[in-house]
Amino acid sequence: MWINSVIKVGIVGGTGYTGVELLRLLVGHPDVEISVISSRSEEGRPVAELFPNLRGVLELCFSAPTAESLAACDLVFFATPHGVAQEMVPQLLDRGIRVIDLSADFRIRDIALWEQWYKQPHGCPERVNGAVYGLPEVNREQIGAAQLVACPGCYPTSVQLGFLPLLEADVIDAGDLVANSASGVSGAGKQANVDNLLAEASDSFKAYGAPGHRHLPEMAQGLADIYGKPVKLTFVPHLLPIIRGIHSTLYANLTDTRVDVQALFEKRFANEPFVDVMPAGSHPQTRSVRGSNMCRIGVVRPAGGDKVVVMVVEDNLVKGASGQAVQNMNIMFGLPETRGLEAPALLP
Amino acid sequence: MWINSVIKVGIVGGTGYTGVELLRLLVGHPDVEISVISSRSEEGRPVAELFPNLRGVLELCFSAPTAESLAACDLVFFATPHGVAQEMVPQLLDRGIRVIDLSADFRIRDIALWEQWYKQPHGCPERVNGAVYGLPEVNREQIGAAQLVACPGCYPTSVQLGFLPLLEADVIDAGDLVANSASGVSGAGKQANVDNLLAEASDSFKAYGAPGHRHLPEMAQGLADIYGKPVKLTFVPHLLPIIRGIHSTLYANLTDTRVDVQALFEKRFANEPFVDVMPAGSHPQTRSVRGSNMCRIGVVRPAGGDKVVVMVVEDNLVKGASGQAVQNMNIMFGLPETRGLEAPALLP
Amino acid sequence: MWINSVIKVGIVGGTGYTGVELLRLLVGHPDVEISVISSRSEEGRPVAELFPNLRGVLELCFSAPTAESLAACDLVFFATPHGVAQEMVPQLLDRGIRVIDLSADFRIRDIALWEQWYKQPHGCPERVNGAVYGLPEVNREQIGAAQLVACPGCYPTSVQLGFLPLLEADVIDAGDLVANSASGVSGAGKQANVDNLLAEASDSFKAYGAPGHRHLPEMAQGLADIYGKPVKLTFVPHLLPIIRGIHSTLYANLTDTRVDVQALFEKRFANEPFVDVMPAGSHPQTRSVRGSNMCRIGVVRPAGGDKVVVMVVEDNLVKGASGQAVQNMNIMFGLPETRGLEAPALLP
Amino acid sequence: MWINSVIKVGIVGGTGYTGVELLRLLVGHPDVEISVISSRSEEGRPVAELFPNLRGVLELCFSAPTAESLAACDLVFFATPHGVAQEMVPQLLDRGIRVIDLSADFRIRDIALWEQWYKQPHGCPERVNGAVYGLPEVNREQIGAAQLVACPGCYPTSVQLGFLPLLEADVIDAGDLVANSASGVSGAGKQANVDNLLAEASDSFKAYGAPGHRHLPEMAQGLADIYGKPVKLTFVPHLLPIIRGIHSTLYANLTDTRVDVQALFEKRFANEPFVDVMPAGSHPQTRSVRGSNMCRIGVVRPAGGDKVVVMVVEDNLVKGASGQAVQNMNIMFGLPETRGLEAPALLP
Repeated sequence: MWINSVIKVGIVGGTGYTGVELLRLLVGHPDVEISVISSRSEEGRPVAELFPNLRGVLELCFSAPTAESLAACDLVFFATPHGVAQEMVPQLLDRGIRVIDLSADFRIRDIALWEQWYKQPHGCPERVNGAVYGLPEVNREQIGAAQLVACPGCYPTSVQLGFLPLLEADVIDAGDLVANSASGVSGAGKQANVDNLLAEASDSFKAYGAPGHRHLPEMAQGLADIYGKPVKLTFVPHLLPIIRGIHSTLYANLTDTRVDVQALFEKRFANEPFVDVMPAGSHPQTRSVRGSNMCRIGVVRPAGGDKVVVMVVEDNLVKGASGQAVQNMNIMFGLPETRGLEAPALLP
Repeated sequence: MWINSVIKVGIVGGTGYTGVELLRLLVGHPDVEISVISSRSEEGRPVAELFPNLRGVLELCFSAPTAESLAACDLVFFATPHGVAQEMVPQLLDRGIRVIDLSADFRIRDIALWEQWYKQPHGCPERVNGAVYGLPEVNREQIGAAQLVACPGCYPTSVQLGFLPLLEADVIDAGDLVANSASGVSGAGKQANVDNLLAEASDSFKAYGAPGHRHLPEMAQGLADIYGKPVKLTFVPHLLPIIRGIHSTLYANLTDTRVDVQALFEKRFANEPFVDVMPAGSHPQTRSVRGSNMCRIGVVRPAGGDKVVVMVVEDNLVKGASGQAVQNMNIMFGLPETRGLEAPALLP
Repeated sequence: MWINSVIKVGIVGGTGYTGVELLRLLVGHPDVEISVISSRSEEGRPVAELFPNLRGVLELCFSAPTAESLAACDLVFFATPHGVAQEMVPQLLDRGIRVIDLSADFRIRDIALWEQWYKQPHGCPERVNGAVYGLPEVNREQIGAAQLVACPGCYPTSVQLGFLPLLEADVIDAGDLVANSASGVSGAGKQANVDNLLAEASDSFKAYGAPGHRHLPEMAQGLADIYGKPVKLTFVPHLLPIIRGIHSTLYANLTDTRVDVQALFEKRFANEPFVDVMPAGSHPQTRSVRGSNMCRIGVVRPAGGDKVVVMVVEDNLVKGASGQAVQNMNIMFGLPETRGLEAPALLP
Repeated sequence: MWINSVIKVGIVGGTGYTGVELLRLLVGHPDVEISVISSRSEEGRPVAELFPNLRGVLELCFSAPTAESLAACDLVFFATPHGVAQEMVPQLLDRGIRVIDLSADFRIRDIALWEQWYKQPHGCPERVNGAVYGLPEVNREQIGAAQLVACPGCYPTSVQLGFLPLLEADVIDAGDLVANSASGVSGAGKQANVDNLLAEASDSFKAYGAPGHRHLPEMAQGLADIYGKPVKLTFVPHLLPIIRGIHSTLYANLTDTRVDVQALFEKRFANEPFVDVMPAGSHPQTRSVRGSNMCRIGVVRPAGGDKVVVMVVEDNLVKGASGQAVQNMNIMFGLPETRGLEAPALLP
């Protein structure tokens, strides 16, 4: 049970989109004090100079990321590219500091698999098994007790939540799952990249990574954990000409066609504060979750047949990253799970 | 001084964009209870069915707009097209209910001028002089005591705030002001209109209303009030292929070139919670105020000459409409002016 | 064989997007004279007033649609909503005028099925069997001899071309096909509709019609014609915040995993002027066909497994509608198939 | 007079947006053969690999840019950043090859001014005076005879065409001109740059370069050439979240209010194939010129006063760059001025 009045928080890697989104959410969180925000490249620069939306609400400057500067924190978020958290996390854990890693470093238990997809040796394999996969709808209890939480990827969050009730109820053929997902460009991060220029990516649409994408092994692991057995998943991501938002359209074959899929979803998520099962026949829109931690789901059986189609939307920077991280923080520190995450989506 | 614990609020006309934006802001306001939300066309329908971002946070249904149903309110907002508030406001005022009208009905003191631009007889001319023009940066004190506040238009807010320091300091030629403004399409409201279809308005840009626009007399009146004498203004609005945001680029000739315009603006707005003068040389972006009540201003003298260029950004639905209405409410009820309006802009 | 020097063309229903696109393509076609363009609602109005891109290149005014005014045409295009062509086509055919119908009126041979999906009695069932389905890659020969061509729908063109090589070669399980498609908003036509406002549809993404869409029976019929047996298809369309472009992501299970899918596609379309099989590993982008009649296809076997993923892009207004209509016209009149359709896509 | 059947054309710097746009226009030009296209960074790579819209229509590979490889050309276009043409142009001119430079290298006659704005020594000042400024509406005759044409910048084209009739007729105060311009992001080129990412630039709007922009001296020179005396211009460019299109809103004070500005514009441009004066009261849209070489202009006197507002739209990559270059080529080689530039804009 958390008894201090305020959680002292540090953020490593605050210059990207998940970093600024963490800041946006945390400046409004009544139980948090942002103590440190680090960036090697922007050391000394006021955060609000880089992110003008924070002018007047955050006075902090970026500092160099060191274990010493983070020593006084109760919790450190890593909003860094993969490979960074691996290096610093052990020192923090050893000092008793809790960690939520938004990168991929501690998500995959099979180290060889991680090394294959991320094409580098893992820097801290001994801590991977102790990490809790931070999907509250699956692992709420372990998250509460965790010292290290591996926050799920944006696509994996949507795909796992969408298949969750069907796999738990064992009513679909887990040997042939299809996830057709589409993400706004903020998912690619704030990197100078010709492909993501407005002149290249707007007024257009394309798939990418169809032969294989790094989020696939994370999804496969998570779905297998839910199902209790391996699953077979085809995953094709697409690039949307929007800033925020993930839409996953999931396809599976029902093995039991008597199931009422609408009721199944409503029951499974009845007590989940951040999963909203839409009324039967609804098609969720990404804008209905823009800026919010909500995940909205619609489920349909076209022509009442044996194919079930699940449509899942989330804001990739919120429920797909920083919002879920805050949700995990709330759970870890015994706070109401929705604290600081109550604001409705910005619509229109 | 407001001593009740909660302000009971009614909203007339809750189906448009300023309506849903009021709702978004008010559901998170700790001192407000939304008692009634009315819509003739959607009577009986749950609000959250029309606006899925409010699912789970607002249980209310639309009701028919009647003075009786609004009788228990402390404050009623009108988020209606022009011509509607004129009909209902007198009955509410007579019952002692305070009113904030977001429409144009009570903004212009010259009734003939109003009737010329809005092409209909004014339904309530006797209440116009008692209305306070709700631009807090100019009329804060009167707003506090007002029973009826006429909330400024979206373009006029940006144009008046941008010229304010220059006119007050009497350093520009008020006989030749140019306001070149551009607004996102939400300014056109949630009306089915071919011109505002995504297929028509996106990936394009155009001016409109160059020969004359309804916001011109409101601006002219407001600028003259500030200056103490009539001004001459050319105003050309443009339609931006974005959802939210107004950018006004203002041009004037300095009559006193010794003035330090940066210092002038910084000093004038030093204590304003919702006007942010950017550092010298900055160009404010509309996204830096998306979803926020902030107005950001940059001011430049190109090549150090006698032309001054002021760039003003605001979210047309927030500082340009519903946020400013909430700011006015806070002032009217003696609350901290920023209450319920603290959330930073959504960026990216 | 066509021996006149110029094809006299009429267009019924020229005020929508397929109408203006036909005009854009035909004004540059060296063998065509646009004789008549009709619209009941815009009778007498210069076409270029409605479509400013045609100022200076098309002097025509809209006229009322009558069989008499069309009597001098060699060919009449119907760019009308469904239900209109049914009424007028018989009179034109009886006069020996050839017809290309871009609407759904003559696409589906099963009249009862048509009536079920379009919710009205079919006005001309006796002409349906004589109509040729205008997908040149499948029916080129019959199109050449046809008096009435039913031009395929936008989604069905992409889905049929994508599954074509696989079904012809009989290497997939035709009992479980999935088509996950996404279209730009111009596919919804130039109708005033709140859902398609820029403020509603931009910066967002959603599925629609998941329980069932009118293009499904057309696809099922076309795929069955190709395969020689019925197929089972799940089709989920999505709305993209772009103007033009369809992207279909197709999923099927290979029954013969020894097949080289890349070679299969390259061979099948080697002589097709408007189907471009991209190099192995490519992901086609909708912008690469913007304004062009080209359909580009990429094909992938994720992780070399038994799932085949086909990605198909087309411009919904060109290869998905008006360009394909011109291609059909070229075939019907013995012209080179690419005449008037040579311009590359507009990129960026 | 040009008597060869085909113009052999070389393009130096073919990897940017003006390069690909030149290619798009030239592959459809009946009198042109593209002989060489060079790029140092992409040497050996097929052009169509970089620009998928050219797959199947252009077989060329990029080659290294050398005077030798260009020796057989009749005409060489430079679509390079400033500073490159200066180095190579003299060698080409010495060989009798004609040159159209799309960069800024030969636009400004005052070398010191050029060096001040472009912050580098000019590499070829001795050729600057021999260059003809390629704005056909002003310099058609000299362009026909020119060996070196300096193609105007995108903003300067729109601003000069808009002020042209007013300055020539001497009816405005040339001492106080305002040009408020907005450009699509393709104007920034195909450079990896965080500011132009879709996640940064879309759904937003901002001014830039308000203190001073490189196109200002070019405009000032061109307007002074037209007027016969120096003018004073304030120019503020803005960044639009669209791909293509420039919209300039020009403001000036009439010195003679009896002038019929609509008639003045119509008369001045009556014989110009690429300037379209819209009917009185029209507001031109950038999409009406998307992909076309047309410049459309609307002119208004708000409330019939002494301020004149001119609205000018062009496609920054066509009339603002590559289309105007082709127009210049047509003039230089005695071809009909519209050859290869007839295609209407892509709308919607």
